Amino acid sequence: LQLDQASLTELKQLETKLLSEYGEFNSAGLNLDLTRGKPSAEQLGLSNALLGGLHDDFLSEDGTDTRNYGGLAGIPDARRMGAELLSLTPAQVMAGDNSSLTVMYQTFLFSYLFGPGDNSKPWQSENAKFLCFVPGYDRHFSICEEFGVEMVNVPMTDTGPDMDQVEALVREDNSIKGMWCVPKYSNPTGVTYSDETVQRLAKLGQMAPKNFRIFWDNAYAVHDIANVTQPLANLMEYCKQFGTEDSVFLFASTSKISFAGAGISFLGASEKNLTWFQSHYGILSIGPNKVNQLRHSRFFPTLESLKGHMQKHAEFLRPRFACALEHLKMNFANSDLVVWEEPEGGYFISVDTRPGLAKQIVAMAADVGVKLTPAGATFPYRRDPQDRNIRLAPSVPTLEQVDEAMKVFVNCTKLASVREAISSKR
Amino acid sequence: LQLDQASLTELKQLETKLLSEYGEFNSAGLNLDLTRGKPSAEQLGLSNALLGGLHDDFLSEDGTDTRNYGGLAGIPDARRMGAELLSLTPAQVMAGDNSSLTVMYQTFLFSYLFGPGDNSKPWQSENAKFLCFVPGYDRHFSICEEFGVEMVNVPMTDTGPDMDQVEALVREDNSIKGMWCVPKYSNPTGVTYSDETVQRLAKLGQMAPKNFRIFWDNAYAVHDIANVTQPLANLMEYCKQFGTEDSVFLFASTSKISFAGAGISFLGASEKNLTWFQSHYGILSIGPNKVNQLRHSRFFPTLESLKGHMQKHAEFLRPRFACALEHLKMNFANSDLVVWEEPEGGYFISVDTRPGLAKQIVAMAADVGVKLTPAGATFPYRRDPQDRNIRLAPSVPTLEQVDEAMKVFVNCTKLASVREAISSKR
Repeated sequence: LQLDQASLTELKQLETKLLSEYGEFNSAGLNLDLTRGKPSAEQLGLSNALLGGLHDDFLSEDGTDTRNYGGLAGIPDARRMGAELLSLTPAQVMAGDNSSLTVMYQTFLFSYLFGPGDNSKPWQSENAKFLCFVPGYDRHFSICEEFGVEMVNVPMTDTGPDMDQVEALVREDNSIKGMWCVPKYSNPTGVTYSDETVQRLAKLGQMAPKNFRIFWDNAYAVHDIANVTQPLANLMEYCKQFGTEDSVFLFASTSKISFAGAGISFLGASEKNLTWFQSHYGILSIGPNKVNQLRHSRFFPTLESLKGHMQKHAEFLRPRFACALEHLKMNFANSDLVVWEEPEGGYFISVDTRPGLAKQIVAMAADVGVKLTPAGATFPYRRDPQDRNIRLAPSVPTLEQVDEAMKVFVNCTKLASVREAISSKR
Repeated sequence: LQLDQASLTELKQLETKLLSEYGEFNSAGLNLDLTRGKPSAEQLGLSNALLGGLHDDFLSEDGTDTRNYGGLAGIPDARRMGAELLSLTPAQVMAGDNSSLTVMYQTFLFSYLFGPGDNSKPWQSENAKFLCFVPGYDRHFSICEEFGVEMVNVPMTDTGPDMDQVEALVREDNSIKGMWCVPKYSNPTGVTYSDETVQRLAKLGQMAPKNFRIFWDNAYAVHDIANVTQPLANLMEYCKQFGTEDSVFLFASTSKISFAGAGISFLGASEKNLTWFQSHYGILSIGPNKVNQLRHSRFFPTLESLKGHMQKHAEFLRPRFACALEHLKMNFANSDLVVWEEPEGGYFISVDTRPGLAKQIVAMAADVGVKLTPAGATFPYRRDPQDRNIRLAPSVPTLEQVDEAMKVFVNCTKLASVREAISSKR
């Protein structure tokens, strides 16, 4: 389907057909939801052993009584798990409570108020800006917005952010203090950063001010959907080569591995940065929930056991993603209506419509009972300058629901596109 | 023993005797610790059922799947528990993760950066000061210090803080934005605020600026040691009478009820204040660990069951406190060496030596292997202006260890006091 080559008559006929289909959806009384990047109940059930007991065995491997206060950096058993997820040494990792978002916020907060690392200037005192790769993760952008840190958009490519732009911006503007990265199965595009991208990011610390930090949110480190895993280069290894170890903070969690709301989180950084982090973190905490860390360490005794567990997740996710992608392919391959990435991991499918249509499509779908993530959510300040990106999240609905919701999405997208083509021909 | 009435000869004889005793402690190779206000392993064992399973029953009473994301305010089961602990309605309570310290920090942070409540000025913009009742809790003071909020000392009396001073300061100085309170079994004095004190605190909101907030850390709400409980007036009820409901934040946790490091925390406030809190809290969290909240709700189905549990804690604490207090009574009753409060709950015994001796006594005890909380720790900036307050924490050591440690404490206190009396007579 090439709208630009269709005649007005053809377009009008198509509109009529699509409208009749839309009417049928309207009378079907649908109630479907593709908004939420969270695990389904079946996926959560894979970890139900965590609900079970520690059988009065509450000592971590170094003999710590996990029930009591203390242990700001987390128990060694959990730090090792985080080190494996982030390809770091255990000494470069702290294990925390259920939310890596909270750890990212705290790292950002301490940098904002006190400066990241010893003797570095607080971001607050320097009108800090942050680079945001778009489309991206709304909760990253919300943290910047909360602190009044100005966000500068840089487009994503299929190898990661546009590194020419990133380097030029960092070189030219000293007020750029950092950037958000989801390096693997990026939210929402699904892109994994190429080796060259990782290398160039690691090198930024050489040209950036001392209080510059990359926030490396490796949220989908082991979250393959396909049968293969996309390789991701080791950021810290490149940093070592370039002498920029202090320019990066790394994050991960088990939220989409065990229980979304009751997992454990990890902060990775140079030992110098970790010591700095703890000097502020120690003001607000006497230590994380170590019992929950121990539960996780027992449930995932090795990285292999964890990876095996992730394959079971993939079995739930794979058919849902395949179904959604099949709808896109069947309807939009070789068309000029929609472009999308085919993710091999993560939780999202990112779709770009023709410019100016995303909001309208989301509203049309909502009107017939299909909730999609609000258009604009994947951009800073919720403003998609081209109004074309829509994030689909097929993990929670059943396969039948994904199928039904995608039919509606396809219909609304075609209808909005056809109408726009008609009005532009008039 | 009245040093002021003793002759120089008597004092010298006493010094010789005490020195010989001190020498014996020195050769005994002691390794004792009275520093930490935390539960003993036996106390933690009372809650070992929490290590056990939820038996695949992971739904809260409103049907929420506690394993997944969401539920910023906590599950209703847990909010009800917090409401009972804080004498509030469940709508006035949020349930959180393992640390009320973290919740206090966050409340302080949001007030500092954004102003507490809608349309109120950020503390940061007004050179905020805080009232600190002394002696008090070091971690409260550390939060003020971290943010550069100036601390103003107000002495504790046996009915709570000196309210005449508190009222005068709040009336005179608009930059005073709040105060830390531990209203029941206060840390470290053990004092419970009188009805009049609570009433006068509730009234402060009428004379204070709009962005003034009382931080009411009810850490020891149900933590009786004696067989009776000290009644504490209902702060929020008084606030209702005075129209000052928005002037207070209340905090509690199960840290010293279940597991010190793996309990749940509570924030209590007017619904208006809670909405405000969530507007900022939602930036850093997708929700607390609800599985742990559910575990706690199941383990303590009623307030009565929780209170019964606390009686078991008291059985472990009572002999340790009795032992420590007996040493003080036997040696210092009717003396001019030491004054102390006899706590009926909480975790501490607060001792005031003769002025200028606390640091010296703590150092002397350390030299023979008995660790005491650093002198000054109970004051802002770790500065006890009179250098006389020492906090004893007898919960963790065995009864025999408490006995031995107290012998050393008594000896060091007498020795330091006698030497000071000798040098002042010369």
